[in-house]
Amino acid sequence: MKRSNCPITCALDILGDKWTLVIIRDALYKKFTTYGEFQSSDENIASNILAARLKMMVENGIFKKERDNNNKLKIHYILTSKGLELKNILTVVGDWGFKHIDGTIDIQKKIEELNGY
Amino acid sequence: MKRSNCPITCALDILGDKWTLVIIRDALYKKFTTYGEFQSSDENIASNILAARLKMMVENGIFKKERDNNNKLKIHYILTSKGLELKNILTVVGDWGFKHIDGTIDIQKKIEELNGY
Repeated sequence: MKRSNCPITCALDILGDKWTLVIIRDALYKKFTTYGEFQSSDENIASNILAARLKMMVENGIFKKERDNNNKLKIHYILTSKGLELKNILTVVGDWGFKHIDGTIDIQKKIEELNGY
Repeated sequence: MKRSNCPITCALDILGDKWTLVIIRDALYKKFTTYGEFQSSDENIASNILAARLKMMVENGIFKKERDNNNKLKIHYILTSKGLELKNILTVVGDWGFKHIDGTIDIQKKIEELNGY
């Protein structure tokens, strides 16, 4: 299954697409936990992609699923410690993006915006 | 064209796949510069994917193309400063991979292996 023993390659087997870290960003900084919340982001993620990525991340131990206390049909996606530790990756990816891609905003400003300040 | 002004999202528009950072890894640590070298890596990248990723990275200013001095048909892909600054991302992605994915080796050991020591 693994392409090699390289920790970069194996991490990319999980994280290497255009949406996974965007969903993690919203879980970390917007405190989103539900499917509907993740779907509301600026980037307009397609419903089938969101469903596939959440399922993949649960299978890989990045999120755990919890039922809502008041509505048993509602599921919350909660970041595990493995998921929370993706924060460092988001920060350096955001630093690089702001420095090198026109039309992006500073990652710290973006985080404040996502936090709702 | 951009999904949003978020520097994470925009960076993933370039970097978000399973191969781009693997190619960067080999350019940085194995000092690979040619198509044939990149194709020789352990991960067995498909020829059409390698060609597409190199083209995309040249278009995005991560590599610049230079003709070989002795063989005008031979092209070298040289990391720009934008490309060299992906090193931080590789390190944190590798740290996370080693910590959280079974069967991977320490990123510093992997870098030594890639460097040929």
